[in-house]
Amino acid sequence: MSNEALVTRLRDALGKDAVLTDTDVTAAYSRDMMPLAEAGTPLAVVLPADTEQVQAVVRACAEAKVPIVPRGAGSGLSGAANAIDGCVVLVLTKLDQVVEIDAGNRLAVVQPGVVNLDFRNAVEKHGLFYPPDPSSYDWCTIGGNLSTNAGGLCCVKYGVTTDAVLGLEVVLADGSLLKTGRRTVKGVAGYDLARLFVGSEGTLGVITQATVALKPLPQAPGTLVAGFTTTEAAGEAVARVVREGLVPSLMEIMDAASIKAAETYLRTDIGAGSDCQALLLCQSDAGGEVARRELSALEQICRDCGADMTYATDDLAEGNMLLQARRVVLTALETYGVWLTDDVSVPRTRIAELIAGCQRISEEVGLRIAVVGHAGDGNMHPTIVYAPDSEEEFARARTAFDAILDVGLSLGGTVTGEHGVGKIKREWLEREIGPVGMRVHREIKRALDPENLFNPGSMFSV
Amino acid sequence: MSNEALVTRLRDALGKDAVLTDTDVTAAYSRDMMPLAEAGTPLAVVLPADTEQVQAVVRACAEAKVPIVPRGAGSGLSGAANAIDGCVVLVLTKLDQVVEIDAGNRLAVVQPGVVNLDFRNAVEKHGLFYPPDPSSYDWCTIGGNLSTNAGGLCCVKYGVTTDAVLGLEVVLADGSLLKTGRRTVKGVAGYDLARLFVGSEGTLGVITQATVALKPLPQAPGTLVAGFTTTEAAGEAVARVVREGLVPSLMEIMDAASIKAAETYLRTDIGAGSDCQALLLCQSDAGGEVARRELSALEQICRDCGADMTYATDDLAEGNMLLQARRVVLTALETYGVWLTDDVSVPRTRIAELIAGCQRISEEVGLRIAVVGHAGDGNMHPTIVYAPDSEEEFARARTAFDAILDVGLSLGGTVTGEHGVGKIKREWLEREIGPVGMRVHREIKRALDPENLFNPGSMFSV
Repeated sequence: MSNEALVTRLRDALGKDAVLTDTDVTAAYSRDMMPLAEAGTPLAVVLPADTEQVQAVVRACAEAKVPIVPRGAGSGLSGAANAIDGCVVLVLTKLDQVVEIDAGNRLAVVQPGVVNLDFRNAVEKHGLFYPPDPSSYDWCTIGGNLSTNAGGLCCVKYGVTTDAVLGLEVVLADGSLLKTGRRTVKGVAGYDLARLFVGSEGTLGVITQATVALKPLPQAPGTLVAGFTTTEAAGEAVARVVREGLVPSLMEIMDAASIKAAETYLRTDIGAGSDCQALLLCQSDAGGEVARRELSALEQICRDCGADMTYATDDLAEGNMLLQARRVVLTALETYGVWLTDDVSVPRTRIAELIAGCQRISEEVGLRIAVVGHAGDGNMHPTIVYAPDSEEEFARARTAFDAILDVGLSLGGTVTGEHGVGKIKREWLEREIGPVGMRVHREIKRALDPENLFNPGSMFSV
Repeated sequence: MSNEALVTRLRDALGKDAVLTDTDVTAAYSRDMMPLAEAGTPLAVVLPADTEQVQAVVRACAEAKVPIVPRGAGSGLSGAANAIDGCVVLVLTKLDQVVEIDAGNRLAVVQPGVVNLDFRNAVEKHGLFYPPDPSSYDWCTIGGNLSTNAGGLCCVKYGVTTDAVLGLEVVLADGSLLKTGRRTVKGVAGYDLARLFVGSEGTLGVITQATVALKPLPQAPGTLVAGFTTTEAAGEAVARVVREGLVPSLMEIMDAASIKAAETYLRTDIGAGSDCQALLLCQSDAGGEVARRELSALEQICRDCGADMTYATDDLAEGNMLLQARRVVLTALETYGVWLTDDVSVPRTRIAELIAGCQRISEEVGLRIAVVGHAGDGNMHPTIVYAPDSEEEFARARTAFDAILDVGLSLGGTVTGEHGVGKIKREWLEREIGPVGMRVHREIKRALDPENLFNPGSMFSV
């Protein structure tokens, strides 16, 4: 089938308006938020409206041997959703229905194009809670969350996307529809295929529906902030929180560069003091007296580990204000240039070493690196700032990006905690999982997608 | 390679005592606890002592084209570990080391032959908790738990085996060793291979090591028991507990037949009253005032739903005594004959309908069926009692076993909540997941085990 014939067939199946080929328009769908990743020029961008249309697209592309790059909102940070030359970009945003909310069984059925925040709001009306909350929660989609196994700030207590998944519907490489998983809490009928597709970055099939388990809506959180004069002390506090069996509902860390950027941007002193090297922000959503006790235990640990500033509040608005410093860091860093955020997870006892490593790398490459991270689960986001118009600085940023992964691996960590491998960490995946792991990946990819139709070259090459 | 040559090679690799061929001895390793499943006569039973020896066994069997059936203690209830004629039974019980307990990162590294209870006790010394607690926890092994994705009484609050798994080491069909997963809380580097192997019932590889996440040790639980004059009322109470966002650490149900069997066996009146049709047993391990509040909320819901008897205690010994009724049911049923326990999971709103279905089936087949179950997650174990010496009763038991699965599926459930498919539910797996699901299973099996070396015929036929 020629490219023209494919476009005609797609238009026949989806309607004219759902198949875009104007390169000015398709460019808007050709990359995600990761500046390091290359993006090609798609043959077409298609916006199917339902599962049957997704199947039609997959069948047509399979026949034409034109690769498919599935995508949601494009908030990703690994280039996994970036177009490759001549591909069809399959946009799932029109599959945007919350199909069902079953409060009696604490589950929901949702399409991939639903925005995370909209889904959270929809289930909240039933007194329910969908935990995964990536920073882009107000615009990223559930489909993207599933494909990258997205995390967020809540993971420390509530787990990541895969922990919520009960079942999936997936369009396979031949266009057939796989319904896998279940609506029950437990189930062991066959292989755990749902969790194989979660986090597979669109390389094995196209997720068109998910059944997810929900949690009871937690209480409004109380908040604690603690300032440390050394990152080692903050790291020790995190390790002690883990060791003593506390499970805060949020536990974020900011290093000195992050604190400074946030303070400058917010034109405020967040009370950390000028010699503050690390800030821990913790929340407890256990409610009432229990939350106060949890926060008090967290505060005591911070004090014991040398925090010279701690402040706790059970006022929600005040808590949000304190968290604001954490939330604005990336925006604040834009004052200094453009940023490149890394994503590395280390054992929770090694956080201070990772931050120290980033500071060393910052000095070596001569670029500002600010570290924010989900301290409670060891998932750090060192963020490198470089001049937008300097290729030379961009190259140094790339060097720093890789050097951080190197440190992460050397600390027993992983090269991606929640952003994914995509098109920027392929060689790092290979380094982390080794030849046997790569072989198994290729065997599974070939078994499910023998023609390499789905997102070829993302995550790994077959 | 001839069978004799294979045995010689296995003896050379493992030592003479680790390779058993006397059929009187190998018979003891030829089946698990599921009477419905057939068991063949193995060529040999091997007991490797380390991963290298497992690799040697796999390589030798691959070369000789002799299938391998991996097994742990043999506590399974699906026949997954049953020998097939001429196979090598690979017993993992000698890989029995707790390799590492890392309290600072709340994880442990464990070999498959460690008994669940021994592992629980080992981590408890560090103030940590390994949740999965199948009823056979005092003799089943971690490897069997991983291979079946075992559940237990704790699942309602703490999840099943797969929820605890961070990483695995697996010997593949060519004898190579796959190290997959991680030591960090989060990680998305590549496909979630670890969770593909968990629950794969020994059909994809041999697990020789696992890294598992641990929880803080919970408080001693308080206990509530509630008696209902109808199963509908008990079912409604479970649904309301879910809907109102309560998460007890245990929530078990017993139907009238179970209550009667337990009372007769224990020679005691468990206080349910003669017209009690269903008993709910709940625990909260949240500690102190919080546990008391949770139990009080649970009690109120039970009362609101029509419970005419409720009793709560925060005394641990008394709580254990109350739970005793639940724990002795299977033993108690042996008074009436031998039992065959089924395993079906339904949405939590449909529990009463499942129990009603079981009572109908009991009348139809003329056999006693007692239902106990993990009400909090809808996982029911209807248990059929038949005369040990009657083939005709055994056939009726089998009819009832299948009829229960039929009811479970019709209620939106799954044909196995935690025991697995094994050699007894192959056609039910097919019925539940359909032709596309079966095709994907076969594709993955062929990709990882092209010669069908591992546990052929278990779960499904290639």
